[in-house]
Amino acid sequence: GVAPAVHAQEAIRWRLASSFPKALDTIFGAAETFAKKVGEMSGGKFQISVHPGGELMPAIAGMVDNVQKGTIEMVHTAPYYFFGVNDVFALGCAIPFGLNSRQMTAWMYQGNGLKLMREFYSKYNIVNFPMGNTGAQMGGWYRKEIKSVADIKGLKMRVGGFAGKVLTRMGAVPQNIPGGEIYQALEKGTIDAAEWVGPYDDQKLGFNKVAPFYYYPGWWEGGPQLDAFVNKTAYDKLSPENKAILESAAAYAHTDMQAKYDAKNPEALKQLVAAKTKVLPFPKAVMDAAFKESMALYTEMSESNPDWKKIYTDYAAFRKDQNLWFRFTEMRFDQFMQAQKL
Amino acid sequence: GVAPAVHAQEAIRWRLASSFPKALDTIFGAAETFAKKVGEMSGGKFQISVHPGGELMPAIAGMVDNVQKGTIEMVHTAPYYFFGVNDVFALGCAIPFGLNSRQMTAWMYQGNGLKLMREFYSKYNIVNFPMGNTGAQMGGWYRKEIKSVADIKGLKMRVGGFAGKVLTRMGAVPQNIPGGEIYQALEKGTIDAAEWVGPYDDQKLGFNKVAPFYYYPGWWEGGPQLDAFVNKTAYDKLSPENKAILESAAAYAHTDMQAKYDAKNPEALKQLVAAKTKVLPFPKAVMDAAFKESMALYTEMSESNPDWKKIYTDYAAFRKDQNLWFRFTEMRFDQFMQAQKL
Repeated sequence: GVAPAVHAQEAIRWRLASSFPKALDTIFGAAETFAKKVGEMSGGKFQISVHPGGELMPAIAGMVDNVQKGTIEMVHTAPYYFFGVNDVFALGCAIPFGLNSRQMTAWMYQGNGLKLMREFYSKYNIVNFPMGNTGAQMGGWYRKEIKSVADIKGLKMRVGGFAGKVLTRMGAVPQNIPGGEIYQALEKGTIDAAEWVGPYDDQKLGFNKVAPFYYYPGWWEGGPQLDAFVNKTAYDKLSPENKAILESAAAYAHTDMQAKYDAKNPEALKQLVAAKTKVLPFPKAVMDAAFKESMALYTEMSESNPDWKKIYTDYAAFRKDQNLWFRFTEMRFDQFMQAQKL
Repeated sequence: GVAPAVHAQEAIRWRLASSFPKALDTIFGAAETFAKKVGEMSGGKFQISVHPGGELMPAIAGMVDNVQKGTIEMVHTAPYYFFGVNDVFALGCAIPFGLNSRQMTAWMYQGNGLKLMREFYSKYNIVNFPMGNTGAQMGGWYRKEIKSVADIKGLKMRVGGFAGKVLTRMGAVPQNIPGGEIYQALEKGTIDAAEWVGPYDDQKLGFNKVAPFYYYPGWWEGGPQLDAFVNKTAYDKLSPENKAILESAAAYAHTDMQAKYDAKNPEALKQLVAAKTKVLPFPKAVMDAAFKESMALYTEMSESNPDWKKIYTDYAAFRKDQNLWFRFTEMRFDQFMQAQKL
């Protein structure tokens, strides 16, 4: 026989490196959901394989570089990990006393957020897509109670990303420890405290067994957004259809990941409390001191980093308006519901 | 020449009827966004024309029937409009003292919500897709202050959907008035009060000029979800690719619509306040009375409607867990932020 003259279009095959381990079905799962949707919508003609942190490259270090150079087509990560490259990365994820989850999505989708961040990321040959939010995280696990600002001084704490800058100003000693080594460090007392995400993820790592006090809120990440970083050269080669598919698959995963955290956290919190975890709010004085240091830091950054100044100015104005509006009907409704016996 | 043996696949053309007028760029706009994404992802091979309320069929009346029979392939609507068909429709949208926006999405995407509602809607030959949420709505515009539960008695109020059942139990006289006629009725005093959505939509209708008191929260819709209702017969004929495209386009529009409300409402609220609108919370006694009547109503419905009982039982358990969890880190973070000078 004769081979058909017209060959089926060859499938596009991409690889996605996640910053997270498979065990985090929430956050790693979002990348899997995304890839599945892309495959379904394209009828298998656009396939993306998803790789856990460390499989193809280090989970965090060098990731921006790898996307920029096209070593990999895309990654799924928490942009604030890369504040060492430029502090502006944190604005696309979470900064202390920043936007909450819904507000962050509003800034991205309908404010200037996505436009401004894409303009910034283009310097790194990156096109980004919002792809998940954890919601307001918990403030972490502590071996001793935090009763005042003085208790923060000298505190050796494992904390991810940009927040360490504020904690350092408060006298803490932030520690950079990979997820898999936190438990041991906390058990041995090498560190005094560690934050990770929230009840569902934290429970898996067993922190409650080695640190009894679980504080809230995680004021350094009130609504951290995960992003897909896509190599712009690879992105530009996609057909208009595949570009649109990539965008909507990311939107699906974005919403689905927040939904998963919301659906899974309550049961985990109940189990942690049943296992004698003491869930406590940070003292107001600690929150006030952290807020003050954060605002001072942002002012300093605006003086030294023009990109920060430009994007943070827009972010801060949006945050002000959002908090003005949310204090009315959303807050009153939630407060009333939370006070009821349901 | 000889015509090619293989013809290009013909485009699928669907029509979508919205329940809303074009002027509501938020809620009508969500359907347009959805259709645009479907067109882009399919390379124009799946086209959906979007028609405002009243263009192809009445904006609300008969809509379920029309989808069921396949008179139209799909509609975009607020399911609680159809509580007259079955009260269960309200559970897929909003009930008084129900889930807030994020919780509703969590129930749908990662709880049993979508599964249970699809099972129910299948009786009407409908497959539904979450497609937008307004967030907690405002409690509406009042010609006179509401100081106590007594002020609700005899109140002639325009209110959409299912909420009228609870207001009737409180002594109010709910009025069913189309959006375009509310202003005049309120101006003439034919009605005493009217609720619509929130600052951005309400401002367009000019209610602030004829009713000075703007109450919150809209306790009857803390997070109303809009849905696409798709005729199941038409849906089943779609290719797996187009089914997946429809789902992700709806997810994009779902998230984008909430983002648009969040981004637009603050400025509108500021303008309304500058124009002398008095923004007031409902007295706690009014909220308490409304809550009590709502819970009594749900108990009665569970006794008479097995579908309600089945789905509401799951919904109520989810609501209980959500409010348990949200009162910790989310609430504390939001409260702190809203108390700051930003």
